[in-house]
Amino acid sequence: MATLAQVTSQRMHFSAPLALKSGATLADYRLAYETYGSLNERRDNAVLVCHALNASHHVAGLDEQGRLGWWDNLVGPGKPLDTDRFFVIGVNNPGSCFGSTGPMDPNPARGRAWGADFPVQTVEDWVDAQARLIDALGIERLAAVVGGSLGGMQALAWTLRHPRRLRHCIAVATAPNLSAQNIAFNEVARRAIVTDPDFHGGHFYAHGVVPKRGLRVARMIGHITYLAGDAMESKFGRELRAAELAYSTQDIEFQIESYLRHQGDKFSEYFDANTYLLITRALDYFDPAREHGGDLARAFAAARENRFLLVSFSTDWRFSPARSREIVKALVDNRIGVSYAEIDAPHGHDAFLLDDARYHGVMRAYFDRIASEAAR
Amino acid sequence: MATLAQVTSQRMHFSAPLALKSGATLADYRLAYETYGSLNERRDNAVLVCHALNASHHVAGLDEQGRLGWWDNLVGPGKPLDTDRFFVIGVNNPGSCFGSTGPMDPNPARGRAWGADFPVQTVEDWVDAQARLIDALGIERLAAVVGGSLGGMQALAWTLRHPRRLRHCIAVATAPNLSAQNIAFNEVARRAIVTDPDFHGGHFYAHGVVPKRGLRVARMIGHITYLAGDAMESKFGRELRAAELAYSTQDIEFQIESYLRHQGDKFSEYFDANTYLLITRALDYFDPAREHGGDLARAFAAARENRFLLVSFSTDWRFSPARSREIVKALVDNRIGVSYAEIDAPHGHDAFLLDDARYHGVMRAYFDRIASEAAR
Repeated sequence: MATLAQVTSQRMHFSAPLALKSGATLADYRLAYETYGSLNERRDNAVLVCHALNASHHVAGLDEQGRLGWWDNLVGPGKPLDTDRFFVIGVNNPGSCFGSTGPMDPNPARGRAWGADFPVQTVEDWVDAQARLIDALGIERLAAVVGGSLGGMQALAWTLRHPRRLRHCIAVATAPNLSAQNIAFNEVARRAIVTDPDFHGGHFYAHGVVPKRGLRVARMIGHITYLAGDAMESKFGRELRAAELAYSTQDIEFQIESYLRHQGDKFSEYFDANTYLLITRALDYFDPAREHGGDLARAFAAARENRFLLVSFSTDWRFSPARSREIVKALVDNRIGVSYAEIDAPHGHDAFLLDDARYHGVMRAYFDRIASEAAR
Repeated sequence: MATLAQVTSQRMHFSAPLALKSGATLADYRLAYETYGSLNERRDNAVLVCHALNASHHVAGLDEQGRLGWWDNLVGPGKPLDTDRFFVIGVNNPGSCFGSTGPMDPNPARGRAWGADFPVQTVEDWVDAQARLIDALGIERLAAVVGGSLGGMQALAWTLRHPRRLRHCIAVATAPNLSAQNIAFNEVARRAIVTDPDFHGGHFYAHGVVPKRGLRVARMIGHITYLAGDAMESKFGRELRAAELAYSTQDIEFQIESYLRHQGDKFSEYFDANTYLLITRALDYFDPAREHGGDLARAFAAARENRFLLVSFSTDWRFSPARSREIVKALVDNRIGVSYAEIDAPHGHDAFLLDDARYHGVMRAYFDRIASEAAR
């Protein structure tokens, strides 16, 4: 299986206002996206890939800077989502910091960067914005929408808002909403960012600084929740960085500290603080059952024409298998076709990004099925 | 069961240097402590209570400010640890911020507060410091040492360092060492504090400020790990603070956010930042098996004359029952008498502070046994 040759990211501008769930409007916006493979004549082999918290439209192949896409192990020629058969679209969401309209862009009303004034985004807003890109690409109906974690929420939201625009929904390591504990971790991360003096109320761009302290802490917290406790234990345990303890409260003693600090430092170099707030809030808000009196089955009544694959991972304590099973139950209650795979994998939430053979086997089989349906 | 009338905290000064595990020395130190009940003539009814991260020597009764002790539901007349029968001692550890020598005290060598230069403390150092208090109180052998969480580690360390100075060790909701995930949470909390610009390298006292931002984040992280996910879910779930969503990344939307912010604010008003660093490090360092090639059973060979009660709680994911069972196994391997209770309680790690009937029943029965042995 080869990796795609260099891919070029594209941008599309949308001048029609986008009405947001909050009641606000995004007057116009730009989407960064990439495509892999070719749209067939019937225009029925397109698969949209939705990204999670810190990823982008760069899903597969090598970009201009030689960086591999975040789901390159899944997407490419001969891979489970085979770009020899499918036309795959990766798109960056509004509010993100990788090329689509976001907090660093000028706010026309204020003559400065949007900063913290960027309109609050929801999963549903992103899906609406993505639908316009699909329109512009001349695709009436997607073969599938696929995503993991927050990306999985977008895939689910597609079936609720635009059920006729897709056939299959593939939602990996996701949940029908965040738990109190999920929200709690998001909130601590946001407080770390917002209370960093370099945040300047979200208008730090004008000050020439970045609230890196807050971003580092936010990322460290997030990282702990992405990894399974047992995997962290077998990878790091209580291993020391040096042969002897230094007896210091501030120096690194344990390898896990070194690893986390490194993750935090790296993240703070490239990720936007306002984007972090926006994306964690979109996670908090996602709750399709809410508008149906808390009844998830009633929410999914809209998706009767769609087919689903749900995948969860045994050691994912951020979005546990139980959360995926809630979705499966809501679908079954509607007699909607759903395949569900619970993968026994040690890597916690991060497993959705890794190439576990059983997981990729399930994904490959499902995409094969989609392809064979299309060939009929 | 009555609450003790007003209790008065006492202080004792120790002028002999205390050699610390780090190799450093605490030239002299002061311990704040309280006692409840009366030492009997045989001086064999004393029970030492060790505190965890954010507590103090004020274990039971009402202090001068009318505040109830942190373990008042367990300790008092007629309570499981009955002060009509036992002479109970609560002691604040060096490095803490509630009256014993700590980072706010003057560093004789520098003519300013110790701040971040306060010698790094370990569980073993605390136990050695406590032993001198027990000497000074004229007690040769304690009936028991009891503690929860970090307090439980101190109770364990007593049996390893001073096994002849106590009969029973009662260690609740504790662990033989921190896991990688435990250390990871501590490290994020410490980074939040240390990178708060108001920390000033640990010498913030001279600047007239307190790194409250860091302390708030540290406490919020800690609090998430003290509560069971399910209990958080049933208490807060996705309950909103207002009737409608505000669509804001910074305002409070969910009750869990309000609760966590409140906990963080409260903590930042009274807790010392350097103490937080010192105490989390003491947690990280505790690892009695380390000096025995990782063999916990070999470590506990020192405790052959002691008897143990271990208690864990089913929903405690910080120090899970499995961690207590590691200790039980090490004791059994040494043919040391150990009682072990795994309490099915919903409150996570915090359960050790609550008055669950089954938990307190176990504690009462064990203290009854200790009292009846003493009466023989």
